[in-house]
Amino acid sequence: MWLSIPVALIFREQDSLQFLLSGAITGTVGLIAYFSTRKSPLVLNRRDGYAIVSGGWFMFSLFGTLPFLLTGSIPGFTDAFFETTSGFTTTGASILNDIESLSHGVLFWRSLTQWLGGMGIILLTLILLPFLGIGGMQLFTAEVPGPTPDKLHPHVKDTAKRLWFIYLIFTCSETLLLWAGDMGLFDAVCHSLTTMATGGYSTKQASIAFWDSPYIHYVITFFMFLAGTNFTLSYFAMHGQFRKVWENEEFRWYAGFIGGFAVVITAGLFFTGAGGLEPAFRHSLFQVVSILTTTGFVTSDYMLWAPWLGMLILILMFFGGSAGSTGGGPKIMRIVIMLKNSTQELNRMIHPNAMIPVRLNREAVEPGIVTNVLAFIAFYGIIAVISVLVMSVFGNDLDTSVGAVLATLGNIGPGIGGVGPVLNYAGIHVIGKWFLSFLMLVGRLELFTVLVLFSPHFWRR
Amino acid sequence: MWLSIPVALIFREQDSLQFLLSGAITGTVGLIAYFSTRKSPLVLNRRDGYAIVSGGWFMFSLFGTLPFLLTGSIPGFTDAFFETTSGFTTTGASILNDIESLSHGVLFWRSLTQWLGGMGIILLTLILLPFLGIGGMQLFTAEVPGPTPDKLHPHVKDTAKRLWFIYLIFTCSETLLLWAGDMGLFDAVCHSLTTMATGGYSTKQASIAFWDSPYIHYVITFFMFLAGTNFTLSYFAMHGQFRKVWENEEFRWYAGFIGGFAVVITAGLFFTGAGGLEPAFRHSLFQVVSILTTTGFVTSDYMLWAPWLGMLILILMFFGGSAGSTGGGPKIMRIVIMLKNSTQELNRMIHPNAMIPVRLNREAVEPGIVTNVLAFIAFYGIIAVISVLVMSVFGNDLDTSVGAVLATLGNIGPGIGGVGPVLNYAGIHVIGKWFLSFLMLVGRLELFTVLVLFSPHFWRR
Repeated sequence: MWLSIPVALIFREQDSLQFLLSGAITGTVGLIAYFSTRKSPLVLNRRDGYAIVSGGWFMFSLFGTLPFLLTGSIPGFTDAFFETTSGFTTTGASILNDIESLSHGVLFWRSLTQWLGGMGIILLTLILLPFLGIGGMQLFTAEVPGPTPDKLHPHVKDTAKRLWFIYLIFTCSETLLLWAGDMGLFDAVCHSLTTMATGGYSTKQASIAFWDSPYIHYVITFFMFLAGTNFTLSYFAMHGQFRKVWENEEFRWYAGFIGGFAVVITAGLFFTGAGGLEPAFRHSLFQVVSILTTTGFVTSDYMLWAPWLGMLILILMFFGGSAGSTGGGPKIMRIVIMLKNSTQELNRMIHPNAMIPVRLNREAVEPGIVTNVLAFIAFYGIIAVISVLVMSVFGNDLDTSVGAVLATLGNIGPGIGGVGPVLNYAGIHVIGKWFLSFLMLVGRLELFTVLVLFSPHFWRR
Repeated sequence: MWLSIPVALIFREQDSLQFLLSGAITGTVGLIAYFSTRKSPLVLNRRDGYAIVSGGWFMFSLFGTLPFLLTGSIPGFTDAFFETTSGFTTTGASILNDIESLSHGVLFWRSLTQWLGGMGIILLTLILLPFLGIGGMQLFTAEVPGPTPDKLHPHVKDTAKRLWFIYLIFTCSETLLLWAGDMGLFDAVCHSLTTMATGGYSTKQASIAFWDSPYIHYVITFFMFLAGTNFTLSYFAMHGQFRKVWENEEFRWYAGFIGGFAVVITAGLFFTGAGGLEPAFRHSLFQVVSILTTTGFVTSDYMLWAPWLGMLILILMFFGGSAGSTGGGPKIMRIVIMLKNSTQELNRMIHPNAMIPVRLNREAVEPGIVTNVLAFIAFYGIIAVISVLVMSVFGNDLDTSVGAVLATLGNIGPGIGGVGPVLNYAGIHVIGKWFLSFLMLVGRLELFTVLVLFSPHFWRR
């Protein structure tokens, strides 16, 4: 929060004191918590893990509201909590009707919540979730220079530092490239922070459509693509091991899905729209990458496209980024396992006595992990269906309910209908906003981390 | 088809000759096929099973168009094929804009296609599918006085006869009860034929809403409930073994889902609508049973209800009847296993080393079958998503696409949007009609039976 103070000073804005106070309150509470628990021995079990992660993200979102509330940028607590949760979960769903009216300090803090959330997610998905074994996440544990349970500590620190370094490098590179283009330094920094987190907060109400510059569109597309890639692969690439990147099956599917959807939508936009081939291609690619990686930046209002093109975007909302990226959603790896298992199920029907495993990276995936993945996706579907019902109780139509649920549960940001790409969440009922904030948290923490807290088994003994 | 001749004669209609001709053509082709293959030895393998079932249903639908085409009731072949497929798959989706204008003979044939389809489904789901092991269907094989693979023949004939007898008894009872009410004999027969098949074809354009009679509504509700119940349980009940019925977990969930949804919707309709408590309860119960069992009769246009009540109906479209009933959809058993596995998955997160099985009827379900069930539901979802996309390509909006896909894939009949309960499928694009006919077949034959034919493995060697 204190990082916003120099921003406020540079732009000669009057809210430095509010940032100082916000940071002081948060810091004081943090220090009290630290010193009052410092002497308890650090022996954590699985339950502590779930509670710490879920509680931690909740606390970020709670204290993160202070700069919004104290500066009066977002007066209501519900709205401030929604906006901050949307930040730390890297969702990007906003209740703001006039983003440009906010001070630079507040805009910077808003972008920073996403960047910090992204750092947390890298730590979480690459190190903690595989250890807890959530929804097939153990699958790529082997890929990471990984933690052995007995000496978790040194490895975690080491791996986290390496990946965060890449995260930082990418953010700086994007800032420079955007700055070199048509974008001012401040906007370049803010957008880079939210790109790498696949967050999607923009400093402009019109999002990236504000800049009518192909260069900026392509640069952001490229970095969204990187942000949706497993950061371990970026680590390999930076050490020249490109073969490891290309041999990674999830990466190839990720690139393949993007390519496939972009080509079809380009064709669709070109033949149904008024523009030329290049804008059609650019906007298609941008929106496909933006939605698939769950970033949520907008250059083109896909609600104005032909209905079936909008439908393709809606389908993309079910995918999500690569496992080990900052992207949300069910993740490419799980989708691929589900699709492969479905075709294998057909083959099993023909050869009932043959062992037909699902293969990933040329190796057979353990049947238990396949079940794990299918259960995760089933859970995702059940939560989505119940949530759509809940949203419809608050008077939203089918499109808006589906859009709001998929966009928050998948940490995307813009949905369809009343929460479409050029609209926002300001009009949602107050209980609906709390509910969607909860969904963002559930989606971001891979469902089970949060939902396990609601199981009676969790609290027993 | 010849059964329509006496109907035509009784009502002094002029189309007896057309039914005679339809039957003669079908019979001749059948006899040629029979005599030309009679001498080949009857050794069937699994592939033959899939091909016979899928091919058989296709042939029914193909030849079943003859009475519609020859009488000129439905002039176009696409429309006739859609209507007949919708009949034999017990779907009930119609392209007819003026049902009352059809002759009694044609209406009778239309109802009969569903009843015959229902007979086929009893044979298929109780005997053949468990044997082929499709999507967890082996689970209730044990329940049926069942087929041992080595001497399949005598058992199949025996079991089929018993269950068909119950099917016939129920149909006759409903006919008498409806006739005793406000309904004429002809309409009573036709509606009984389509109730027991969970088909939903009515002789009236307004469906059951034509009769403003609580008695008729409750009678039909009761028989739809029976038709959505595993027929083996009805067999037990008729032999006084009520305990076996109540101890069947799928049945209790089935009754529970109906009760739960009906109560909530009753409350919703009572507080938002103008009518009294009884009509609210009656229409709620009727529509819940009608949609859950995938019958598709209509007494109240749920598109006019509050949006969230319509959403509850939409959610019901994902359920389907009990396994071993004539109902379509994913089936209660599969939904229950998916829900149970999801909660168990949470418990597994807390106790990762404990064996936590899914239990059904107090016994642990084999993990392989759970995977099988999850794969089935995943497949159902994938097919639904792709199909919604296909329908949207033909210019349908989201509501209509979703409604048409769920209503045909789930063999329900009426959907939402442009194919809502008081509308029909006449306006769908011609390719869309063929596609939906295909979906009806895929849904009715438990997905894999049809889709396996598209696997390259199927055709190898």
